[in-house]
Amino acid sequence: MHSAVDVIRAKRDGHRLSEQQIDWVVDAYTRGDVADEQMAALAMAILLNGMDADEIARWTQAMIDSGEVLALGDVGRPLVDKHSTGGVGDKITLPLAPLVAACGAAVPQLSGRGLGHTGGTLDKLESIPGWRAALSLEEIAAQLADVGAVVCATTPTLAPADRKLYALRDVTSTVESIPLIASSIMSKKIAEGTGGLVLDVKVGSGAFMKTEPLARELAETMVRIGGAHGLATTALLTDMSVPLGRAIGNALEVAESVEVLQGGGPSDVVELTVALAREMLALAGITDVDPAQVLASGKAYPVWERMIAAQGGDPSADLPVAKHVEEVVADRSGVLARLDALAVGVAAWRLGAGRARKEDAVQAAAGVRLLAGLGDEVEAGQPLLELHTDTPHAVEGARAALHSGLEITAERPARGPLLLDTIRGA
Amino acid sequence: MHSAVDVIRAKRDGHRLSEQQIDWVVDAYTRGDVADEQMAALAMAILLNGMDADEIARWTQAMIDSGEVLALGDVGRPLVDKHSTGGVGDKITLPLAPLVAACGAAVPQLSGRGLGHTGGTLDKLESIPGWRAALSLEEIAAQLADVGAVVCATTPTLAPADRKLYALRDVTSTVESIPLIASSIMSKKIAEGTGGLVLDVKVGSGAFMKTEPLARELAETMVRIGGAHGLATTALLTDMSVPLGRAIGNALEVAESVEVLQGGGPSDVVELTVALAREMLALAGITDVDPAQVLASGKAYPVWERMIAAQGGDPSADLPVAKHVEEVVADRSGVLARLDALAVGVAAWRLGAGRARKEDAVQAAAGVRLLAGLGDEVEAGQPLLELHTDTPHAVEGARAALHSGLEITAERPARGPLLLDTIRGA
Repeated sequence: MHSAVDVIRAKRDGHRLSEQQIDWVVDAYTRGDVADEQMAALAMAILLNGMDADEIARWTQAMIDSGEVLALGDVGRPLVDKHSTGGVGDKITLPLAPLVAACGAAVPQLSGRGLGHTGGTLDKLESIPGWRAALSLEEIAAQLADVGAVVCATTPTLAPADRKLYALRDVTSTVESIPLIASSIMSKKIAEGTGGLVLDVKVGSGAFMKTEPLARELAETMVRIGGAHGLATTALLTDMSVPLGRAIGNALEVAESVEVLQGGGPSDVVELTVALAREMLALAGITDVDPAQVLASGKAYPVWERMIAAQGGDPSADLPVAKHVEEVVADRSGVLARLDALAVGVAAWRLGAGRARKEDAVQAAAGVRLLAGLGDEVEAGQPLLELHTDTPHAVEGARAALHSGLEITAERPARGPLLLDTIRGA
Repeated sequence: MHSAVDVIRAKRDGHRLSEQQIDWVVDAYTRGDVADEQMAALAMAILLNGMDADEIARWTQAMIDSGEVLALGDVGRPLVDKHSTGGVGDKITLPLAPLVAACGAAVPQLSGRGLGHTGGTLDKLESIPGWRAALSLEEIAAQLADVGAVVCATTPTLAPADRKLYALRDVTSTVESIPLIASSIMSKKIAEGTGGLVLDVKVGSGAFMKTEPLARELAETMVRIGGAHGLATTALLTDMSVPLGRAIGNALEVAESVEVLQGGGPSDVVELTVALAREMLALAGITDVDPAQVLASGKAYPVWERMIAAQGGDPSADLPVAKHVEEVVADRSGVLARLDALAVGVAAWRLGAGRARKEDAVQAAAGVRLLAGLGDEVEAGQPLLELHTDTPHAVEGARAALHSGLEITAERPARGPLLLDTIRGA
């Protein structure tokens, strides 16, 4: 017989939790037999005292066991998924899922909504008229077999312990724990039933992990969990010090994704989409297709149209347009030496693209369009970016957020690569 | 404007909490604006990352400010109180309060009930027919002026933040934090309005603090809080590796206390009662009375009678007697080399003298009477102690608790002093 105080005390005092303790506490918390205040104390003890690889693997399993594992059955193609830890302008899932499907794999992406300065994939797709996020298990399986790509809301039966624990961590400052982050992400992906997983772990001001050592630790922890559960997992470490692409905001990002799917779009979005697709196809055992060629040829675009239409969306409909658009102009001539991802993300959030609380609505059309890129030469008075919103009173806050995020200097800044490293399972 | 997540994060990341943060979070928690799960996470962060002396002093003040400070007014004598961190057989308040009153000071002891293996002072006094713990502020003041000693229940308006926080810490394994223990004790004593305070900080198996360094840190922390709040405070470090006296259990301890008040009783109870009285009288500025002489003369006993009678108790009434009494006998001849306080405390608890949950009742007559002391020579078959209970089925559990707590050897064990050290304010 376990008790919550004993489990909390063990971790508080720096001991390993036994498999039985982990199984019991996650299950009892899900059932409500361990109170929120007890799990909050345990989460803080885990954050401060850590968990080792075996504890993390077991914790992940206990979260999976709190719900159902999706029984997708045979969809006729290898299943492979991708998860990003979140960044500013990170719309990569939108071109990536149709691209990987166009190359012969199936992508079962159960996704979430955004909170804070990073947007959510479902929020982005919901800017498309008619598109709906909620699908049944049967609909998911049928769409995977038919189209090869599904991006939809996670089902309530998938790792309910994670949903409950995540909401608790959010209000108790216990989010920033690598064991808890890693097990949260991996429990959902393993329960989703994917056959392979590529992680995009972002590093920099606009990312959750601000430094490369922390991002690397998170990536390695997740790859290790994947290995412990027989899920082939690869992680890319990618830069998130500047926004991805030129569009930040829900409908704005959909439009940019369509450009990429039609063979155009910003080079960084193309580069990252292709890199992730390559890793996903490798895990799916598909080595005879070059995703760069498929993307450039526009052959992934029809898959996008079918993916959107299958979920009720009209891929040819006009996207919402903001009621108010205004520009931010360069205050001097020189080189745009700083274009900070966090500043731009907060600006887009304040314009209405994101939410502060789970129950808030987002504006489909709000966001930021970049008119100049990092390292571009600009003239004084030249527009640097556009602010889009339905609520013009939000512009002042967005400009304030951008204040320290933009800098024009005489010298061109050094710029690092987008792809920092690749971490593969053993 | 503060938020709970910011305060938790600050302590989680090892920062000092500002005075404003402490005032806000304690007040908001008392009002219910900070949730239990948030305070649980903060309590764990405090337990693991600590608070410095200034933070602890401010936290104590915030807990005092959550309620009222007792306005006892002038009772005609200097007020001085004592607090024990709790031990097995620790009935010292019972002879001590009348003794100090007999010497000319007034003792306003607002006390609590027991939980776990250490008994509560109110539980002990409630074994006296008619005695009641709940007094109004007016009754407390009148009794202090008239008798000079009050032992009664704490009032609901006294440091309500502490009451709420203590209940939370109890279920979240965040009790064992010296800053939280020290501020909890001191906030109640300062709010009580005493003019001086003597702390009995116990060390050993039967105490909350098992080692001397921890007990010393707690004692020094509390003495420092007293100094920061202008409350003259002295702490004694005393041994709690063996039970105090020969009686453990509510009515049994009252009977032993009466023996001491009548000039007899076990020497360790007398020694500690006198030592604490001496420190209390020194803080009260009374230096011309020798408490050892007063106790030995029996002159404190009439004060006891008046103190009990003032709260409705009949000091001459027979105390409750257990329905079932049986002996534990020596399994060999030799010297009683081990008489472990924790083992005896747990045995008494299981016999019914203590409670496992706040809502449980205690048996007035249950407990343990020691028939032999540590270091005594005993013969095989000689009774070592008596088990008293109204619920004979509890005896087996009590015997099990005692199993490893009693040891008879060929050699006489070394025994340390009862009084380990005295820590005085600067």
